Amino acid sequence: MGNTDYDCPHRVAIPPTKPFFKALSSSLKETFFPDDPFRQIKNQTSVSRKFLLGLQYFVPILEWAPRYTFGFFKADLIAGITIASLAVPQGISYANLANLPPIIGLYSSFVPPLVYAMLGSSRDLAVGTVAVGSLLISSMLGKEVSPTENPKLYVQLALTATFFAGVFQAALGFLRLGFVVDFLSHATIVGFMSGAATVVCLQQLKGVLGLVRFTHETDLMSVMHSIFSQTHQWRWESGVLGCCFIFFLMLTRYLSKKKKAFFWINAMAPLTSVILGSLLVYLTHAERHGVQVIGHLKKGLNPLSVSELTFEPPYLSTVIKTGIVIGIIGLAEGVAVGRSFATFKNYHIDGNKEMTAFGMMNIAGSCTSCYLTAGPFSRTAVNFNAGCKTAVSNIVMATAVMVTLLFLTPLFHYTPLVVLSSIIIVAMLGLIDYESAIHLWKIDKLDFFVCIGAYLGVVFASVEVGLVIAVTISLLRLLLFIARPRTIVLGNINNSMIYRSIDQYPDANNVPGVLILQIDSPIYFANANYLRERISRWIYEEEDKLKSRGETSLQYVILDISSVGSIDTSGISMLEEMRKNVDRKGLKLVLANPRSEVIKKLEKSKLIEAIGQEWIYLTVGEAVAACNFMMHTGKPNIAPEAELNRQDDNV
Amino acid sequence: MGNTDYDCPHRVAIPPTKPFFKALSSSLKETFFPDDPFRQIKNQTSVSRKFLLGLQYFVPILEWAPRYTFGFFKADLIAGITIASLAVPQGISYANLANLPPIIGLYSSFVPPLVYAMLGSSRDLAVGTVAVGSLLISSMLGKEVSPTENPKLYVQLALTATFFAGVFQAALGFLRLGFVVDFLSHATIVGFMSGAATVVCLQQLKGVLGLVRFTHETDLMSVMHSIFSQTHQWRWESGVLGCCFIFFLMLTRYLSKKKKAFFWINAMAPLTSVILGSLLVYLTHAERHGVQVIGHLKKGLNPLSVSELTFEPPYLSTVIKTGIVIGIIGLAEGVAVGRSFATFKNYHIDGNKEMTAFGMMNIAGSCTSCYLTAGPFSRTAVNFNAGCKTAVSNIVMATAVMVTLLFLTPLFHYTPLVVLSSIIIVAMLGLIDYESAIHLWKIDKLDFFVCIGAYLGVVFASVEVGLVIAVTISLLRLLLFIARPRTIVLGNINNSMIYRSIDQYPDANNVPGVLILQIDSPIYFANANYLRERISRWIYEEEDKLKSRGETSLQYVILDISSVGSIDTSGISMLEEMRKNVDRKGLKLVLANPRSEVIKKLEKSKLIEAIGQEWIYLTVGEAVAACNFMMHTGKPNIAPEAELNRQDDNV
Repeated sequence: MGNTDYDCPHRVAIPPTKPFFKALSSSLKETFFPDDPFRQIKNQTSVSRKFLLGLQYFVPILEWAPRYTFGFFKADLIAGITIASLAVPQGISYANLANLPPIIGLYSSFVPPLVYAMLGSSRDLAVGTVAVGSLLISSMLGKEVSPTENPKLYVQLALTATFFAGVFQAALGFLRLGFVVDFLSHATIVGFMSGAATVVCLQQLKGVLGLVRFTHETDLMSVMHSIFSQTHQWRWESGVLGCCFIFFLMLTRYLSKKKKAFFWINAMAPLTSVILGSLLVYLTHAERHGVQVIGHLKKGLNPLSVSELTFEPPYLSTVIKTGIVIGIIGLAEGVAVGRSFATFKNYHIDGNKEMTAFGMMNIAGSCTSCYLTAGPFSRTAVNFNAGCKTAVSNIVMATAVMVTLLFLTPLFHYTPLVVLSSIIIVAMLGLIDYESAIHLWKIDKLDFFVCIGAYLGVVFASVEVGLVIAVTISLLRLLLFIARPRTIVLGNINNSMIYRSIDQYPDANNVPGVLILQIDSPIYFANANYLRERISRWIYEEEDKLKSRGETSLQYVILDISSVGSIDTSGISMLEEMRKNVDRKGLKLVLANPRSEVIKKLEKSKLIEAIGQEWIYLTVGEAVAACNFMMHTGKPNIAPEAELNRQDDNV
Repeated sequence: MGNTDYDCPHRVAIPPTKPFFKALSSSLKETFFPDDPFRQIKNQTSVSRKFLLGLQYFVPILEWAPRYTFGFFKADLIAGITIASLAVPQGISYANLANLPPIIGLYSSFVPPLVYAMLGSSRDLAVGTVAVGSLLISSMLGKEVSPTENPKLYVQLALTATFFAGVFQAALGFLRLGFVVDFLSHATIVGFMSGAATVVCLQQLKGVLGLVRFTHETDLMSVMHSIFSQTHQWRWESGVLGCCFIFFLMLTRYLSKKKKAFFWINAMAPLTSVILGSLLVYLTHAERHGVQVIGHLKKGLNPLSVSELTFEPPYLSTVIKTGIVIGIIGLAEGVAVGRSFATFKNYHIDGNKEMTAFGMMNIAGSCTSCYLTAGPFSRTAVNFNAGCKTAVSNIVMATAVMVTLLFLTPLFHYTPLVVLSSIIIVAMLGLIDYESAIHLWKIDKLDFFVCIGAYLGVVFASVEVGLVIAVTISLLRLLLFIARPRTIVLGNINNSMIYRSIDQYPDANNVPGVLILQIDSPIYFANANYLRERISRWIYEEEDKLKSRGETSLQYVILDISSVGSIDTSGISMLEEMRKNVDRKGLKLVLANPRSEVIKKLEKSKLIEAIGQEWIYLTVGEAVAACNFMMHTGKPNIAPEAELNRQDDNV
C-alpha cells in the first residue's frame, strides 16, 4: 500500500483477519511462551547442536559448568560453608517447628540442594527448609494425625505432601502456568509472610518457656490461652537461656547491619549459639533442670523413603490439599527471592524453569526422607553476602551437611531446644516487614488492605484463611477494574492540538458543541451496561450544563477508544445501542482511534456502516477538526487542503 | 496556572492528591450510583417537593399516572386482554412444568402483575411465570422432595424459594448491586436459554406421549432413557392430538411472521387451542382413552400463604440456593427483555429499580400463593405488538385473570394436558436462538464457546452446571485479559507525526535507534512479571534485528502508557526494575503520557526522580522528537524553538 492510502485525514486501517487457527496459535504462544524460551534452538541448523542446547535448557548446569573457574570455586566454597553453618541449626529448628524428627531437617539440606544445583537457574538461591512451609505442614496435617500419638504416620503424610507439592510445582513449570504464582501479589506475600512469622514466633514461646503440652492451633487466641493457662509449667531456666540467646542473635544482626565487616559474626551466630548452648547444657546438666534437649540423632545419610509415601483414601485429600498449598507458597517465596537477587546481579531467571527445578527437588526429596524445601530468604541473603558465584555453593553446603550427618550428629545430643527456638524467633522477626506495609499504604491503599487482610487472617484465623482473604480481595480488585472502568472527559491543551483529561490537566479547554469521552478499559459484558449508563449520564449532564450557561448546544459526541484493547459481543451491541440513543438525541457519534481488534469486530458486526466510515478518525484531533468543519460550514467533511494542514497537528 | 505552564514540550501534570476519604467516597459513588439517580431531587429546594420526587422515584406509577390518558387506556385494554388470553394457558402449563398444582399458575398471574405495575419502570414488560424458572424449581426442589409423594411440602418449598428469590432480588436492587447480573453475559444467556428451552421441550414429550411415570432428571440421557424404556406406555391418542396442536400453533406463528395483520391469530392461538382441546375432550370423552386432563380447579382468588413459608433446617439450604438461582435467572431474563423493548421505544430502564420491583413482586407473590414470576419474553413481545402503552396492560391482565379465577375455572376441567404441552413446546422452540449463536461465532469466537458451553452444560448435565460453566469461562476471559495484556510496537505513520501499531498499520515506519512500546492494560500484580519478560524480549529481539541488519543500534525505549489506566505496587516495582535493566543495557527509558493515577504513584514512589522528570513526555511524538534531538546533537533536550514547532505536531 502506498502513500495515497494514508492521505489525511488518516484512515483507520482494518487489518486483514487472520485464519482462526493461526490467530489461536499465536495468542496461545503469547500466553504460554512470552519469553520465547527456545529461540536459540530454533536458529540452529545441526541436530546435535539443537539437542545439546535443548539439554542445556533443561539442565542449566551443563550450560555454565564449562565456564566454571577456580576463582568462582573459592568464592562458592566460603559461601557454601557459611550457609552450611546456618543450614544445620535451621534445619533442626524448622523440622522441630513442623513437628518432624530433627534428623529429617538435616536430611532436607542434603539431597534437594544437589538437585537444585543441577536444574535451578538462580546463582544465589540457597536451598533449604522454610519456616512458613514447616508451619503449614504442622497446622494442616496436625489436624488429621497427631505427631505425638502417631509419629510414623505423621512423617509419612509429611513426605507424601512434599511429593505432591513437588509434582504440582513441576507440573506448573512444564505446563508453563507460571502466572498462577503471579496471582499472589507482592502485597499478599508481604502480609502473609509477616503473619506467618508472627505465628511462628508465638509457637516458639513453647520452646522458650519450656512447655511440654501445647495447642495444635496456630491462631493468636488459642496460643495465648494455652500459654497463660499453664503459667505454673513455665521453666525459668529455659526462659532465661532463651532470652540470652535471643539478645545475642539480635545483637549480632544489629552489628552486621551497622558495619558490613561484622557480616560474618551474624552469619556464624546461629552455629555459635548452638555450640555454646550445647556446651552449657553438657557442663551444667541443665537437661535435668527442665531444659529440653534434642537428644539422640542417628548417624548416616538419608534413607530411601519411596515406600513411606502413602496414598490411602482417608488422608489422601488432606495430603493433596496440603501439598498444593505448601507447593504454591514455596514457589511464591522461592521465585520472588530468586528474582530479587537476580536483579541485583543483573541476570535473568526463568520462572517456569525455576518451578520445574523446585518440583524436581521436592519429588527427589520426598523419596529420600526430606520434607518441603524452597529458597528461604534469610539463607539466600547470607549466601549472597558471603559472595557466592554459582549454585556450587549449594553443593558445598550439601557436602558439609553430609559430613555432619556422617560424623557430627552426636554433638547435637545436648543442644537445647530453647536455642533452636531463639534462632527461629530471631529469623522470623526479620520477616515481619512493617516498612513494606507502610510503603504499600503510601502508594496504594488497596494493596495495603490486601496485605493487612492477609496478616490478620493468618494471625487470628489460620494460614489458609489469610491466604484466601488476600487472594479474594486482589481478584475482586481486578474484576472491579473491568466492571467499573472510568470514562474521562477530554479537553484541548493550550497552544497545541493535544487532547487530555480535564481532571489531570485543569486548564484543558472543552471544544464548544463537542463532548469528548475516553473509555478506559476493554468493553466486555461485565461493564457494557455500566458504560451505557455512565456515558448517557455524561451526555445529559453536558447538555444541562450548556443549557444553563446558554452556550452552543451539543452536536457531536467523540468516543476516544484508544485504550479499548478488546471488545466482546455485549460491547458491540452496547455501542450499537449508544449510537441509536445518540442519534435520537439529534447528536452524532464519532469514534477516534479504534484498535485493530475493535475495528475488526466493528466491521464484522456491520457497525461501521451504521456509524459511517467517515465518522471514524485516527486521532481525537482529526475528529474534532472534522466536527468543527461541519459545524462551521455545514458541508460534509471532504477535508480540503486547509483542513488537512490543521488536522495534521492533532492528537 | 497560565499559558507558560504549558509550553512545549507539554509537561505531564501531576494532579493534586485528593484526601483519602474524598477519593474513596467519589469512587464509591462511581461504583454504585453511575446513573446518579437522585439528581432531580438534589436540585429541589422545598422539602415537600423533595419528598414527592422521592416517592415518585420509588413508586414510578405516581410519576406517570397523572399523565395517563383515555387514549392510552384503550391501547392498554386491548393489549391487556391479549396477554391475559396467553396468561391463562401459559400459567397452567408452566405450573405443570414446575410440578405445581395448575391453579398456582393462575394465581401467579394475578397479584405480581399488580405489584409490578406500581413499582416497575418498564412500560412493555408483561409479568408472568417463566418456563426456565419453573424448570429450575422442579429440578432443584424435586431432588429434595418428591412432588408426587409429598405435594404439600413441595408447594411450601416452592413458595419459600420464591420468597428468598424476591428478598435476594430486592436486596440487589437496594444495595445497588445491579452489576452482579451483568456478569451473566449476553452469550451466557443465549446459550443458557436455548439449553433450557431444549430441556423443557424434551420434558414435554411426557405430556405429548401421555406418559404417567417420568424421570425427575433434566439431562438429555435420562430423559431419552425414560422415554424409550417405556415405549409400550405411549398413548397414540394424545400423541396425535399433540402433533395436531403443535402444527396448528406453529402455523399461526409462521403466518404472523409472514404478515403483521395475522398477529392476532398468533396471539389468540394458545387460548383457541385450549378451548378446542377442551371441547374435543368433552364431546369425545377422550379422557377415558388415555388423554390426561387438568381436572378440577377450585374457584376463588389467591389464598394467603404466609403461613406456608417454611424455614426448617433440613430444607433451608436447598431452598435458599434455589431462591438465589431462580432469582438471578429471573432478573437476567426480565431485565434483558425490559431493556431491549425500552430501546425500541427509546426510554430508559433503571436496572436497580427493576430489581427492587421484581423482588417486591415475588415477596408479595410468595405470601399470596404465587410462585416465581418474571418478565417472560414471549408474553412481553405479544404485549408490545398488541400496542401496550403503559404498565396498565398488566393491571388489565390481572383483572381478566381475576375474573377467570372467580367464575371460569370449571371450564378448564376438560382441558387436555397435551394441549398445554404443545403450547409450551412451541413457545420454547421460539427461544432456541441459533441465529444469535451463529452471530456470536462470526464476531467473537470466545463468546461463542461460552454460549455453547452453557448450552451443552444445560442439556447434558444440568441447568446449574451449564450456568457455572458459562460464568467460569467468562470470568477466566476477564482475568486472562489482565494477566496477559498485549504489548504493541508503534511506528510513525507516513506524512504525519502520528504513532500507531505497526501490526494494524503495516506501513508505519520504525524510528531508527528508538523502540516504541505500548502497554495495553492496567499494570497489576497479575501481569507485572509477564510484562517485564515480554518487554525485555521485545528489546533483545529489536537489538538482534538491528545488529543483523547493521543498522543504528538501539538507544531509547519509549513506553507509551496512555492505556495504563491504573497501576499497583507490583506494577511500580516492575517499572523500577525495568528501568534498572534498561539502564544496564546502556539504553534510556522514556515514558509517554502517564495518566493521573499512574503519575501520582510514580511520584509517590520516587520513580519519577529515578527516571528523570525530563524523560516523561505528554505524547509519543514529543518523546521521539526529544530522542532524535539527543541522538543528533548529543545535547540534553532544551527544546529550542525549532524543536517546538516540530514537536507541536506530534502524537
